[in-house]
Amino acid sequence: MEKIVTDICIIGAGPVGLFAVFEAGLLKMRCHLVDALPQIGGQLSEIYPQKPIYDIPGYPEVKAQDLVDRLMEQIAPFHPTFTLGERVDSVEKQTDGSFIVTTNEKTEITCQVIVIAGGLGCFEPRKPEIEHLEEFEGKGVVYMVKNPELFRDRRIVLAGGGDSALDWTLFLSNVAKEVTLVHRGETFRGAPDSAEKVFELAHQGKINLLLKSNVVAINGNGHLNTVSISGKDNAITTLTADHLIPLFGLTPKLGPIADWGLTIDKSAISVNTEDYSTNVERIYAIGDINTYPGKLKLILCGFHEAALMAQSAFKYVYPNQKLSFKYTTVNGVNAF
Amino acid sequence: MEKIVTDICIIGAGPVGLFAVFEAGLLKMRCHLVDALPQIGGQLSEIYPQKPIYDIPGYPEVKAQDLVDRLMEQIAPFHPTFTLGERVDSVEKQTDGSFIVTTNEKTEITCQVIVIAGGLGCFEPRKPEIEHLEEFEGKGVVYMVKNPELFRDRRIVLAGGGDSALDWTLFLSNVAKEVTLVHRGETFRGAPDSAEKVFELAHQGKINLLLKSNVVAINGNGHLNTVSISGKDNAITTLTADHLIPLFGLTPKLGPIADWGLTIDKSAISVNTEDYSTNVERIYAIGDINTYPGKLKLILCGFHEAALMAQSAFKYVYPNQKLSFKYTTVNGVNAF
Repeated sequence: MEKIVTDICIIGAGPVGLFAVFEAGLLKMRCHLVDALPQIGGQLSEIYPQKPIYDIPGYPEVKAQDLVDRLMEQIAPFHPTFTLGERVDSVEKQTDGSFIVTTNEKTEITCQVIVIAGGLGCFEPRKPEIEHLEEFEGKGVVYMVKNPELFRDRRIVLAGGGDSALDWTLFLSNVAKEVTLVHRGETFRGAPDSAEKVFELAHQGKINLLLKSNVVAINGNGHLNTVSISGKDNAITTLTADHLIPLFGLTPKLGPIADWGLTIDKSAISVNTEDYSTNVERIYAIGDINTYPGKLKLILCGFHEAALMAQSAFKYVYPNQKLSFKYTTVNGVNAF
Repeated sequence: MEKIVTDICIIGAGPVGLFAVFEAGLLKMRCHLVDALPQIGGQLSEIYPQKPIYDIPGYPEVKAQDLVDRLMEQIAPFHPTFTLGERVDSVEKQTDGSFIVTTNEKTEITCQVIVIAGGLGCFEPRKPEIEHLEEFEGKGVVYMVKNPELFRDRRIVLAGGGDSALDWTLFLSNVAKEVTLVHRGETFRGAPDSAEKVFELAHQGKINLLLKSNVVAINGNGHLNTVSISGKDNAITTLTADHLIPLFGLTPKLGPIADWGLTIDKSAISVNTEDYSTNVERIYAIGDINTYPGKLKLILCGFHEAALMAQSAFKYVYPNQKLSFKYTTVNGVNAF
């Protein structure tokens, strides 16, 4: 039962949580980060460490893990500390305004401010209602494409009508042996461009496109073997398939955070864009976990949110000091 | 008299204007950039190309010019076009909602949307009222430290009480032969830490600190030679000085932009944080030129503003298309 005292407890050690250490550090606030994953980097390290990212400003292309490594280097001067592989179980407000954050392993973090930077890690895939679905999870049924190579030369059924379903159909059409996309509607919610390409591939016979259709049953002996689909006329077609990938979006899995009295909107934590504070004093939410008018779930937006958060959190950590905004360009980071 | 037709005309080719090309490009909107400076990169290239920047997320340290170069590489797939060394003189709204932007060289840019990303280039230093001040500009009087080496082994008088005055006093105390800081007050508006260090240097006799004082006269023969300062008891002290650096902040130099009917607040263009739009439809303002509650003049914040702007501008460029948000991670940039 470790006890830690810090200025800011950041829940989530993904890219946005990491950069928050930098922005806090410039204002002489120290941070401790907690993440349920066993390693630093959040979804970047967990889901797609070797995948290139193209939309980090100033990086025409950067591998996800490399970005994490650069961020770690950038925040090193501020000596962040970490509790990894543990989940936050409870948060207790003390009479002086500070919090005690306790994890499932009974690690106790005393802090003045909490920053929730839980990202997509706070969400879980929305699962379709198919009998025996959970029995086949990890045995043919997956909700997320982590490593496309696992699908090479396999028979794949994807289900869904949004961008994920379209993008992965296009991507896997070059990798898998056979790709079938099942969609309950006739038009797609995703990008018109992608939808057009999917229709084109179907027209060329390179994928099977089943519209106004639903997956109704799955079977197999230890591993998925067939997927049954109900079509336009309610006829049932049964396909041989090695994998079923239902892509129906995400649903929040806020766990104990849901009990903190935070305002939730569109499955995310509602924040004020002036400082990305939540409705609970001293609790901020940055990155993919938050929402506000115009919100984009981009890492670069989380970086901005972290900067504004830090300016605002300062008043709780240093209640008697005047905050003065400084540029790093003049004196560098070591001067802070 | 060149005529250009584009989707978005970006005024300002600094880092934020450049990154806006990327975010617009992902949505298939093409951009033309106009900058009064003869080269791309804004203040980064103009003022401190060789200076390291420490607060670009993912870059523990990057030289200003290198950041510009990387951004240019990042936006290359979207083929931005540039008009450099020209100023925007007028903007004319057409009946279909589009604009014609005309420069001082009569270049005409027809566009659906205008993005003002003029940054600090739209500001000029606030000048103190000292007789003959302008005669000595460039001859000893400078309002901005571009290359600190120019002050090596010189006698410098700085005037001001904010962060710039404090930071440059600290910095130049290691470079110049003699540094005098003149401040009309007794306490500083800048960071308490910096103020403390300045007092400490004065105490050690490493700089001259003249409080409750004002520069009242300057003299010289072709080049600045003396600075006269009125002190606490109204006594006048005259110091030999090679340079006077008045640092009283910036004042907007919006030029013709001031006539466009934009709401100006705190010397900047007021915008809505949902999309960084101004009060004039189809005109956005991003980066250091804008203001809103919580605004920080950081490049990283401008990047975020550019992303949200692009999502919003889409409706003017493609009025009949549905915008669908896509991640670059799945298909890369070339897929856009």
